[in-house]
Amino acid sequence: MKLLEDRIRAEGEVLPGGVLKVGKFLNQQMDPKLFYAMAEEWKRLYEGVEVNKILTIEASGIGIAAIVGLVFGCPVVFAKKSKTSNVTGGVWQTIVESFTHGVTNTVIVGREFLQPGDKVLIVDDFLANGAALEGMIDLVRQAGAEVAGAAIAIEKAFQPGGEQIRKTGVRVESLARVAAMDPETGVEFVK
Amino acid sequence: MKLLEDRIRAEGEVLPGGVLKVGKFLNQQMDPKLFYAMAEEWKRLYEGVEVNKILTIEASGIGIAAIVGLVFGCPVVFAKKSKTSNVTGGVWQTIVESFTHGVTNTVIVGREFLQPGDKVLIVDDFLANGAALEGMIDLVRQAGAEVAGAAIAIEKAFQPGGEQIRKTGVRVESLARVAAMDPETGVEFVK
Repeated sequence: MKLLEDRIRAEGEVLPGGVLKVGKFLNQQMDPKLFYAMAEEWKRLYEGVEVNKILTIEASGIGIAAIVGLVFGCPVVFAKKSKTSNVTGGVWQTIVESFTHGVTNTVIVGREFLQPGDKVLIVDDFLANGAALEGMIDLVRQAGAEVAGAAIAIEKAFQPGGEQIRKTGVRVESLARVAAMDPETGVEFVK
Repeated sequence: MKLLEDRIRAEGEVLPGGVLKVGKFLNQQMDPKLFYAMAEEWKRLYEGVEVNKILTIEASGIGIAAIVGLVFGCPVVFAKKSKTSNVTGGVWQTIVESFTHGVTNTVIVGREFLQPGDKVLIVDDFLANGAALEGMIDLVRQAGAEVAGAAIAIEKAFQPGGEQIRKTGVRVESLARVAAMDPETGVEFVK
């Protein structure tokens, strides 16, 4: 998606250690108009695919997912990174290793929010090694629901997550696929 | 706002210990259409007030804030609960005690995202003892920015936070103000 690629070129920053910082428009600071355009693009890509629920993971996926839910006209569920006192009843849970934060989290969703028969579009800001997406796929399947597909803003296509998950038959639509990146030369996208 | 009050009556659940669970439409599962209607109501309430930035705090405020940003046509910044490796440079920071989670968090925003001259609308899902809102007001003022007001979904008006903050001159617009709640008899709103 040219709009997102242009924005990454203009405002993204490549840090040493393989970190692509997009905090000016996608994470710490979010541009809701950009998110709306991204959501419309996913709506176009997933035309004809049944989706009745959006799933994301806290925290940085939530803003994108809320606007995707608005455009798709369905509720948005987010997986939480630890058990808190206002989650009651049973939960689906899985383990996700966070590349960014260097920690392993237990990730949970209340069972009432993912049900058999749900057609779930999984939304996230980044796909790199695939751990978060695999965790969310696991949650959907534990619930007996179906993965309609994944809607990813930025895929680090030089890391194996995206291809591994596509090989399992899950459709993954990433709006910007980074082929290579470097603090000196910037970001190069998959053509 | 009747739409939100009706939803709380229909789908909210009062748990022992003063917890109002609204996970079916406001937290773990979010209803983006409801959020859009709420955002339009805040837009109406704050008509004529200059707002160029939305500030919220992770995680459950982010979905609402993203859609408020869409309706107000401005970027959305969220305060994070701990320092992570992808926040570089200076940050504004404050301490917030979480009622729900029973913990004290250091809350940070990158300095680049709050600047002198910003007119900030602070968005959150709940206002009870006011700790999160006070923390966000503190972040805005550290940055030399102005608080345009606060946009709160649900205020527990029987707790002191809202009145304390209004007394300091900050405008607080809560769309549902809970006067009393009880696991047996449910929720009663301020008339």
